[in-house]
Amino acid sequence: MNTYADRLEAAIARCGNACLVGLDPHLDALPEEFAIARDPKAPRAARAQAIGDFLCAIVDVAAGRVPAVKPQSAFFEVLGADGVAQWERVVGHASAAGLLVIGDVKRGDIDSTAKAYAQAFLEEAPRCDAITINPYLGADSVQPFLDTCAKVGGGVYVLVRTSNKHSALFQDHGTPLLHEKVADEVARWGTGLLGACGLSSVGAVVGATHPAELARLRQRMPTTPFLIPGYGAQGGSAKDVGVGFLPGGRGALVNSSRGILYAYKQPAYRDLHWKDAASQALARMQTEIAGCWR
Amino acid sequence: MNTYADRLEAAIARCGNACLVGLDPHLDALPEEFAIARDPKAPRAARAQAIGDFLCAIVDVAAGRVPAVKPQSAFFEVLGADGVAQWERVVGHASAAGLLVIGDVKRGDIDSTAKAYAQAFLEEAPRCDAITINPYLGADSVQPFLDTCAKVGGGVYVLVRTSNKHSALFQDHGTPLLHEKVADEVARWGTGLLGACGLSSVGAVVGATHPAELARLRQRMPTTPFLIPGYGAQGGSAKDVGVGFLPGGRGALVNSSRGILYAYKQPAYRDLHWKDAASQALARMQTEIAGCWR
Repeated sequence: MNTYADRLEAAIARCGNACLVGLDPHLDALPEEFAIARDPKAPRAARAQAIGDFLCAIVDVAAGRVPAVKPQSAFFEVLGADGVAQWERVVGHASAAGLLVIGDVKRGDIDSTAKAYAQAFLEEAPRCDAITINPYLGADSVQPFLDTCAKVGGGVYVLVRTSNKHSALFQDHGTPLLHEKVADEVARWGTGLLGACGLSSVGAVVGATHPAELARLRQRMPTTPFLIPGYGAQGGSAKDVGVGFLPGGRGALVNSSRGILYAYKQPAYRDLHWKDAASQALARMQTEIAGCWR
Repeated sequence: MNTYADRLEAAIARCGNACLVGLDPHLDALPEEFAIARDPKAPRAARAQAIGDFLCAIVDVAAGRVPAVKPQSAFFEVLGADGVAQWERVVGHASAAGLLVIGDVKRGDIDSTAKAYAQAFLEEAPRCDAITINPYLGADSVQPFLDTCAKVGGGVYVLVRTSNKHSALFQDHGTPLLHEKVADEVARWGTGLLGACGLSSVGAVVGATHPAELARLRQRMPTTPFLIPGYGAQGGSAKDVGVGFLPGGRGALVNSSRGILYAYKQPAYRDLHWKDAASQALARMQTEIAGCWR
């Protein structure tokens, strides 16, 4: 069985870039033809369906061009069971299109509960190739995810240093800094899940909004795949994210969500259909990211 | 509008105890009449329906006797959209039965995403009265939940010190210990959401498996409602949890999940129907918890 790390590295090599398209269906930002999604009086199933329609179209834009997509669970959950049904549709559609799917769910809980989350997202069809998880509860809360990854060839990205403005409050606490301690554990957990490519299926979320830390953490976790949010709409540049890569442009994915999905709102693309705007914004990101590690 | 803290204190006073029944539908532990839930070949909707049937029956056992129930999201999510539909059914059924509902979802994410989670669980019907959240991302990730609580009269319980065996790995990092730093922030966040009862709608999850810390944290967060897991099946005694209360038996809820739901498996109750076993186990817990703070 292929490990997640091996599938990921093969997909990055095949696409020639390490772009990750974040599928964050902000109701307020959806193009006008999906306006029903933000109408609280419309039937919930119809609202959710519009979100699914939009994201499946974005998946079609991304397919064959980038290694992976990252649906954000919160924006589906806000429409309850109908939203989750569309989550399943989008995950299934992306997988069928040959994209790796990283479920951005940021789950974390004690043993038997963590095991249920791991099963929910990494085992049950339509399943994600990897998910994001939160380390606050400690090693015994992460272990069930690692066990499931080993069993099904899945991956996890552990939150280490997040891209939000005040992430330092707890993540920079103590000596070493808490996020450094988490990083050391992530590196250690990863040694049990190394692929043939030399990288692990235990990844780390490290924001591009803190480039100095990104470079330091790259040293600290030499075989860990990075998921780097914060590029584009959140302020990180291609140069900022470059330091998160391993030599040869390996070992990282750079995420952009709003910058692609809602490119039609940017001045540069305002004369285009939202789908063409997304496609052109993605082309620009592909070029920027392809060379950013040099 | 009533604050969550006020509704909670009124419910504790009305019931004369601070028991919280955790609704954790472990597939493997369900009584035989719900065996379809663990049959991977059965239609998923039928499996989820069985979980909903079981938990609605447990809600009926708890109604009028305890202040609140705590459904655990993971065990619903493992059955996808069908599971989430049953989550909605159980949340709605418990609310209609007059129970407060604490959604154990442990969510946490950056600003706009946290806002979507807050809306999903605290605003959209059927809504929870409060939810558990994870603080790892920092204050700006918690703020959207606080804003929503203020708007709808909801509550949050921030993970401070969890009940799992190795929770110290990160939670005891640094000086002060990370969980103490989190506790100080929780106390501070809570000052903006004080109810007429004098307690806040910003609560804390503090495990009973660490009684010394529980007592210290009670001092550190004097107006914070505690959600105390770890009683019963996880090893904490009534005496252990007592130190988490404020004078007069206020300011805390003590959770038991497996000890109530699956009481029929315990030697003491093995001649009883699972529903009677749950009822008797709950009666015993009510007695133990009612006096535990003295």
